Amino acid sequence: MNYRMIFGNLGTVLCIEAALMTLASIVSAIYGQDDVYAFLISIAILIVVGFLLHLLKPKDGQMYARDGFATVALSWLFISLFGALPYFISGAIPTPIDAFFESVSGFSTTGATVLTDIESLPRGILFWRSFTHWVGGMGVLALMLAILPSVKANTVHMLVAESPGPTPGKLVPKLGQTVKILYVIYSAMTALQIILLIISGMPVYDSVIHALGTAGTGGFSIRSTSIGAYNNVFSEVVIAVFMFLFGTNFALYYRMIRGNLKSCLRDAEFRFYLGTVLVSTVLITLDLTGKVFGSFWEALRHSSFQVSSIITTTGYSTADFNLWPSFSKAILMLLLFIGASAGSTAGGIKCIRIVLLMKLVRREVHRIIHPRSVYTVRINGKAVDEDVLSGVTVFFYAFMCIFAIALLIVSLEGKDMISNFTAVATCIGNVGPGLGIVGPMGNFSSYSVLSKAVFTFCMIAGRLEIMPVLLLLAPTFWKKVNI
Amino acid sequence: MNYRMIFGNLGTVLCIEAALMTLASIVSAIYGQDDVYAFLISIAILIVVGFLLHLLKPKDGQMYARDGFATVALSWLFISLFGALPYFISGAIPTPIDAFFESVSGFSTTGATVLTDIESLPRGILFWRSFTHWVGGMGVLALMLAILPSVKANTVHMLVAESPGPTPGKLVPKLGQTVKILYVIYSAMTALQIILLIISGMPVYDSVIHALGTAGTGGFSIRSTSIGAYNNVFSEVVIAVFMFLFGTNFALYYRMIRGNLKSCLRDAEFRFYLGTVLVSTVLITLDLTGKVFGSFWEALRHSSFQVSSIITTTGYSTADFNLWPSFSKAILMLLLFIGASAGSTAGGIKCIRIVLLMKLVRREVHRIIHPRSVYTVRINGKAVDEDVLSGVTVFFYAFMCIFAIALLIVSLEGKDMISNFTAVATCIGNVGPGLGIVGPMGNFSSYSVLSKAVFTFCMIAGRLEIMPVLLLLAPTFWKKVNI
Repeated sequence: MNYRMIFGNLGTVLCIEAALMTLASIVSAIYGQDDVYAFLISIAILIVVGFLLHLLKPKDGQMYARDGFATVALSWLFISLFGALPYFISGAIPTPIDAFFESVSGFSTTGATVLTDIESLPRGILFWRSFTHWVGGMGVLALMLAILPSVKANTVHMLVAESPGPTPGKLVPKLGQTVKILYVIYSAMTALQIILLIISGMPVYDSVIHALGTAGTGGFSIRSTSIGAYNNVFSEVVIAVFMFLFGTNFALYYRMIRGNLKSCLRDAEFRFYLGTVLVSTVLITLDLTGKVFGSFWEALRHSSFQVSSIITTTGYSTADFNLWPSFSKAILMLLLFIGASAGSTAGGIKCIRIVLLMKLVRREVHRIIHPRSVYTVRINGKAVDEDVLSGVTVFFYAFMCIFAIALLIVSLEGKDMISNFTAVATCIGNVGPGLGIVGPMGNFSSYSVLSKAVFTFCMIAGRLEIMPVLLLLAPTFWKKVNI
Repeated sequence: MNYRMIFGNLGTVLCIEAALMTLASIVSAIYGQDDVYAFLISIAILIVVGFLLHLLKPKDGQMYARDGFATVALSWLFISLFGALPYFISGAIPTPIDAFFESVSGFSTTGATVLTDIESLPRGILFWRSFTHWVGGMGVLALMLAILPSVKANTVHMLVAESPGPTPGKLVPKLGQTVKILYVIYSAMTALQIILLIISGMPVYDSVIHALGTAGTGGFSIRSTSIGAYNNVFSEVVIAVFMFLFGTNFALYYRMIRGNLKSCLRDAEFRFYLGTVLVSTVLITLDLTGKVFGSFWEALRHSSFQVSSIITTTGYSTADFNLWPSFSKAILMLLLFIGASAGSTAGGIKCIRIVLLMKLVRREVHRIIHPRSVYTVRINGKAVDEDVLSGVTVFFYAFMCIFAIALLIVSLEGKDMISNFTAVATCIGNVGPGLGIVGPMGNFSSYSVLSKAVFTFCMIAGRLEIMPVLLLLAPTFWKKVNI
């Protein structure tokens, strides 16, 4: 393992975090609140540690897959740890585990919170909290690759480990250029959403916060009743639409800009994603009409928002779906596992994997009917590599496995099963709210330290799609081997 | 598709069912209850339909995999349909869907019941109900192959489709001989259990019933509080041990008889199975001691029984685990998915698949660390074929998929989520009891006709390990193709 290179990269990441935090300290200064000192202290710590780590110059410039994966897993642990400093130092979140939980929840774009009285917090802290969503959504390492002047080809392993989906593709031959394009699209869409939210009548500060949370498909709000607090249909539509857009593979936007609209509409994953959203919305609307909401339109308003929010793993809410009928809740629970598209900022299993798994089932059926024929799995007309397929099936199992083990540990404290089940699912899927005590109007504060530690593990494992985290736990990973 | 051969085989299966039902009618006659007429009418119907189907002589003796799978899936549908006749004709279960549910639950060795007042039913009906467990446990087609004089080599497809586990192996070169050996071991163990239960003080009739239910890992009892009604530690130990034994791969017994004890103890699946049982028992015992039961031994008594009952997907109970703490319930819920060994009479995903999936995760980790090396998955020192591995991963996904879709449909009637979730899980895993209203002291009677139809589908899909049932639903399966 190339420890020097890994820790050198970690140093760079921490320096970037310091720069990002400066933005939050400016917001804090603008509003003249006393949390600005918490930011300044945190930034100082970040810069010192970052520079110290940065002194480690690698003897060997070669980065192998294992180094890339280790860099990503450790970077996410470090930025979460140091990102928790402002919460803790400002006294906004007085216990370390809670501050860490909130920080992980932010960067992993989960949006689960331990805060019970959000409205009372200083504005700088709340900005930082939502800003971590935005940074975590597209990826910290991706940001590093986007802003560093020289990006080597072998840093692709870091991007593979960090970006969501089974096969992260390059938009253009150069890796550095690809991440730059992605960040430009990302920023432009965020800016557009801020403008639209302001037009809808939401206060400027609130618009920025909620656009950051939407872009990263995070879901932290500054109101304890989330988007429902504004009771503004225009804002809800803007957020619902943008949640859907940020849950779409960004490569499609690039292709659209290049004028290839047709290929986007024909994309297998996009079709599945759109279809799932439409079908789920219709089913929940029909289930809610008459039972929970008097009119069809009122039911449609809330169901479409909730479906978009849960499948994109954002987690904003306009209504307390904890009180909805079992059928609606079961659909939302399923969407929570599915997640949105690869190459987006969303979490969960991802539509493309579900599509591939379905095709694998079809292949198995085909194999029994025609035992001697060869059947290649294709996506958008292209054959999918067997290694990718194997990775997808293993991911699905590993996801369920971590889910099960986490559920067991969290069950230790004896809370009700629905709360435990959805709390773990919502964390590993990077969604945010679950059902029961962690429902859209609830929070995670009543869980024990052990459970919160498990939740933070699940959030990072979910965001990094398990493998990088699993690697860190493998003993063979740490053995010195010359490959 | 060779329809003539398929329906000819179905005819044979129905004639065998008539013979099996004769045994139940004798039991009924012995106790002089009036349900004997219900059996005689059912037997007459079975013989007539069986002979009519049997008249279809196949033009072509060749059986392809698809024919084998279709035979198995349709056989299980037919025996369940006709097996429901005695319940319906005798008036024991007056509604057709309930009678069908009970019949499917019997043959699939699930043991979920719609009956609310079991003790009042005639003894012949109760015997038939438990006898279907015994027949379904080892397999109806296997029974056919065991008793028919000439078994062709190509009927192996039927055995593959019916027997649990990813790779059903032959004990001896001849297929007919293999199933005969299995049925001899099965019968001998059942007889031994009956004797031990009688010695333990259980009435003879009750001993036979519960031994049949244990052997098939079914779980139908003749007491509404299941084994708990006897409050007899000796009986409980006998049943717990035999549940565990019937959940073990029968091939191990054959090897043991041949003197190869060491290879049994080194078997990877057996070790995982035994380890899971031991660890789960210890964890649940610790969780229950002091909270639910006063003494450690009392907790151990009930936890060991429950663990053995759930992992083997039998479903007997000595205590209402619905009232146990969340941690214990979460462990049981996990065991319900895992299931016992391949080549046993148990349901669920099966330990061998879990072991293989774990090894696949390890291979994926290995692939990232050593990208250019080849890694073969091995079980007991032997390399596992890639096709088998692919089958295992697809099975896992298909299992979860059917589970999710079934859960959605069952949720439509608005019952609580825990009941719905565990009801579907317990049916597809062929266990029997779940939590909430379908807990060990509850039953399935309050579910709607639609939900019960879904449950029966899940039970058959679970028993046949999905693929045969999925094939029947595939349009390409029914197309005329010359292979």
